[in-house]
Parts: sequence; structure tokens; C-alpha cells
Amino acid sequence: MSAADEPATLGDINEDGLLAGIFPGLPTSDRVLIGPGDDAALLQVRTGATLATTDTMVLNRDWRDEWSTGYDVGHKLVTQNVADVAAMGGRCTGLLVTLVADAATSLTWVRAFNDGLCQAAVDAGTAVLGGDLSSAPVGVRMVSITALGEFEAGVSPVRRSGARVGDVVAVSGGLGRAAAGLLLLQRGREQDAPHLVDFQRRPVTDYAQGPAAARSGATAMLDISDGLVRDAGRIAAASGVLLAIDDAVLRSDVDDLAPYVGDQARQCVLAGGEEHTLLATFPSQSVPAGWRVIGSVEAGSGVTVGGEQHSGGGWDHFSA
Amino acid sequence: MSAADEPATLGDINEDGLLAGIFPGLPTSDRVLIGPGDDAALLQVRTGATLATTDTMVLNRDWRDEWSTGYDVGHKLVTQNVADVAAMGGRCTGLLVTLVADAATSLTWVRAFNDGLCQAAVDAGTAVLGGDLSSAPVGVRMVSITALGEFEAGVSPVRRSGARVGDVVAVSGGLGRAAAGLLLLQRGREQDAPHLVDFQRRPVTDYAQGPAAARSGATAMLDISDGLVRDAGRIAAASGVLLAIDDAVLRSDVDDLAPYVGDQARQCVLAGGEEHTLLATFPSQSVPAGWRVIGSVEAGSGVTVGGEQHSGGGWDHFSA
Repeated sequence: MSAADEPATLGDINEDGLLAGIFPGLPTSDRVLIGPGDDAALLQVRTGATLATTDTMVLNRDWRDEWSTGYDVGHKLVTQNVADVAAMGGRCTGLLVTLVADAATSLTWVRAFNDGLCQAAVDAGTAVLGGDLSSAPVGVRMVSITALGEFEAGVSPVRRSGARVGDVVAVSGGLGRAAAGLLLLQRGREQDAPHLVDFQRRPVTDYAQGPAAARSGATAMLDISDGLVRDAGRIAAASGVLLAIDDAVLRSDVDDLAPYVGDQARQCVLAGGEEHTLLATFPSQSVPAGWRVIGSVEAGSGVTVGGEQHSGGGWDHFSA
Repeated sequence: MSAADEPATLGDINEDGLLAGIFPGLPTSDRVLIGPGDDAALLQVRTGATLATTDTMVLNRDWRDEWSTGYDVGHKLVTQNVADVAAMGGRCTGLLVTLVADAATSLTWVRAFNDGLCQAAVDAGTAVLGGDLSSAPVGVRMVSITALGEFEAGVSPVRRSGARVGDVVAVSGGLGRAAAGLLLLQRGREQDAPHLVDFQRRPVTDYAQGPAAARSGATAMLDISDGLVRDAGRIAAASGVLLAIDDAVLRSDVDDLAPYVGDQARQCVLAGGEEHTLLATFPSQSVPAGWRVIGSVEAGSGVTVGGEQHSGGGWDHFSA
């Protein structure tokens, strides 16, 4: 306990007490038949199937407390999970949240984390169904979400494997911003471009572009988690095609970042992860509003940028 | 790499390669419309709603590598999640699996973990839908599952809040075995009772008793994760009643353990966690086969054992 006997860390309170204080403020919806606090939640499913995906963030791997607040972490965790649902063409209907933390973790951090995830859940129009709270060894903290989702009536899932020769490649938003923001944090130059640093801390995806792409006939889709070329390579591999990215079209993305990160701008655009912009392929006449064509689908394998085969780089969790 | 250039750790391979090797062997079912490898899985839901629950295990908090193999950890992780679905009266239909581990983690451990979880998933009649693989700082390892489930036709969810005065309290299996096994491991006496140590490493729950209890009219139910008295207290609190546990009925449970853990046997039975036996309340004429009455529901609050108010003990993640 702190001097004032006000609980200050997870170790100062019991977990049932903490959860009882958090549950009433969690966003809910009329689909939540049983919410947090029982052995399992019960979520209404209206269209005969549920999407399910999960993604984790680990302290000092996926965020640093010096650079990101608890609010940022909660917000980003929601974004990366809901983006996965959107990348199938679905809409997120519920989230399960896991926090694994040591007893010395401050309640201020926990509450900020909860505030960030709740705000992001509200922004995504989704509910928090429940989750798990577990203790960790000193200095270890991990957060994880499982997102559930559904398709609107008439929308079919968009997988990674449907890209066809003759399709175009398109993105629903910017490129390289999160990576550029990370570079600025690493260089201690966050004041140079607060908009990029904010995007690194709390990336924003236009989730509605996922269902919109599905309705428009997208043949393959994912969200850019590990870098444009690396993720494009996943569509290429799953679909048995080559994704040819037009270098000239990316010039504006590079130019947007170059004032802040100099000659690293192109690398940010091609290999920057954590962007969560949607990347999809479409029949060439079917690109919906809000999407930007950056290349084409050709016979072959792998990814080219400006005609040159590109091995990708980007993020691999276990590489050095 | 090892001397023979055979990959030996997570750091020796790339994550896409590891996953490509694991995916084909994962248990599936005709409900799995889209399985592992895309942004999200798609699981058929036949009865209009899905149960969802998640539970995590952390190295050196929830298991020790000296005492439990990767196989044990994967198996136990499935059990504790599927037991949560059963404790609502449901049947598990799919699992998402998360592994967070450092690059030095041996592939042998990872494969054993996968084998244990797959075997337990097959035993539970459920599919592995996908999951997440993330890296952790040196020495950190965490595994997590989200379980989805459904009710059979005509079965309604059993919550914690429905216990009524006049109901009986019953359990679907043994008590204190996992805690006794842990004591033996702590004492270096595992050879004294391998059956208890095995139960600690790989607890077994008769999941079918969950839907059976629901069909029989169970008024409240959960699985014993944190100790009989502590978990009974959760039903008492949620239902606004007192659960009176009959000390004499527990005598046989204590006697079963006493030869191995001596005077700790009673504490194991009352406060031992990780047991995953189901605990439920029923109208007195409705106890199904396979359940054992251990007490009654009375007016009041909290839990009594042999007539004495009992504060519980049991497991709280953040207490000292």
C-alpha cells in the first residue's frame, strides 16, 4: 500500500474487487446475452457463423512504457484485432481481453489500459464480453484480445487465396506511418512529427472498408501487420500469383515521410509493420471509393516493386 | 542453429515456416468454415449464439518446466478452457491458441505443447481454429486459449446467479487432487502418488456433466478453478444465498488424500485450485447421475463448512 493506504498496484487489491469495479463500465450491446463475470460470455450470432481472431502485445517487444501509455496500448490492441476481422470483410461483434501483469503493476496503468481499449471498442462499435486476469513474474506484462465478428447479410468472407491474374492491388489508407513514428521515438525526435508518433502509438484503421471491399468483390484481403511487401507476399503465396507493386505510385507515401525520417522513408513504406491499413486485390473495374490502386496481380510468385523481385524484410517475431 | 544445423529453437526458424508445419495436423470439424492461416477463422454457429471464454498460463506462475512437460501444459490449458464452457452447460466447438515465447524456446517444447493441446482438443471433441505466435523477452513464456462453444438444442445457459434457498450443492468429480499433486511436487515426493501428480499436470474433467446438469435443471454452476470454498463463495455472492457445505460428506475426499499429504489433505479439498470439477446447485430432486451432493443452499451469505463460516483461502493471482 502507498503511504495514504490508497491501493496503488495490482498487489494492493484482490482480483475480484478490481474486476467488479471495471465490469459496469465496459461497452456492451444487444448481442451480449451474458457479459463479463461468469465462466463464459454468450454472444448472439445472427448469420450462422462467427469470425474469431486473436492478437497479443508484450511489454518491451510490442511496446515500451517510456513511449506508450496504458491508454495507447489498450487502444492499439483493439485496432490490430478489429482490423483482422475487417480484413475478412467482417464487422466486429465482441472482444475478450486478457491482461497478464506482475503485482507491482500500477492501477493507474491498468485503468488507462482499460480506458483506451473501451474507447477503441466504442469507436469500433463493438462490445467487451469478458476476459482473463493473470499474474506474471516481475517485469512481465502482456495483453491479448480475441475478437469475434460477423458478416453483414450478403457479404462473403474474403480470404488471402483468391487473388487472380489481372486483378489490381489496392490499399485502404496510408503506408509506413507507424514505422516512421517508431523511428522518431527511437531517435528521440517525436516532436518532429507528432502525427506519425501518434499513429505509431494508436494506429487507426477505417474498418468499414473491409465490408465495403467484400461487397465490391475483393478477391483477397488482409491488413498490413508486418509490412507491405511481406504481407503482399502472403497473398501472393496463398493465391499462387505474383503481386507487382508500382514504385511510382508509392512515391507520394515516401515523400510524405521523407521530411521526418529521411532516407528511411522508402523502407518504412515497403516494410513498416503495425500499419493495419487494408491491402486487397480486386477485379480491375471493382475498386471501391476510398481505395488506392498500387499494383497489379500477375502470373508468377512473390512480390515485385518497380519490377524488381523484393524479398520483403518486415517483421518476423523470432528473427534477430 | 545446433551443430548439425537442425533447427532447435524458435529463433532458428521463421514463424511462417513453423506454422505451416503445424497447421495441417490440427484437429478440425465440419463446423470450421475457415481454419488457421488467414486473418481470422470462421466457425459455424448452429444455435444462434456462441459461448466465449479465455484462460492463460504463465511459466513460473502456472507451471514450472521442471515439473510439467510442454505436453502437460498444452493438455491442461485445453482442460481449463473447455471446463469453463462446460460450466455454462455448453459444448466446446473451437479453440484459438496463443503462444508467447522467447527465441531460445526449444522446438521440442513447442511441438510437445502442440501435441498435448491437440490430444486434449480431440478428447474434448473440438477443433483448433487458429491463434497467435509472439515473441517474449528471455525467460518469459505464456500460453493462452480462447474457447468457443454452443448449447445443444433445448439447453439453456447455467449462470452463477441462479442458486435458490432449498437447492442442494453438488460436484461432478473429485476434490483437492490437483492441489495434493502440487504439494507432492513441492516436497519432491511425486513417487508417493503418481495418480495425484498426473492429475496436477493434466487434470481431467467430465465435460459432458455440464450439459447434463443444464438439462437436469441446474440453477447455478461453475468449475472449481481457485478452490471449492472460494468458488462456492462466487455462486453464493452472485445468487445472494449461503452455500452450506457438509463437512462429513467431504471426509472421504480428505481420507483419499491424507495418506499422501497428511494434515494438508483437508486444506487441499477446501481450497485446492486447478481441479476443474464442476460445482453446481440443483433443486433437490433433480441431481443427475454422476453428481454427488455435498451441501445445501440456505438463506444468508457466504459459505459455511460444517456449520462454520469459512473465508475460503484458495487462489488469488495478486495476493502475496
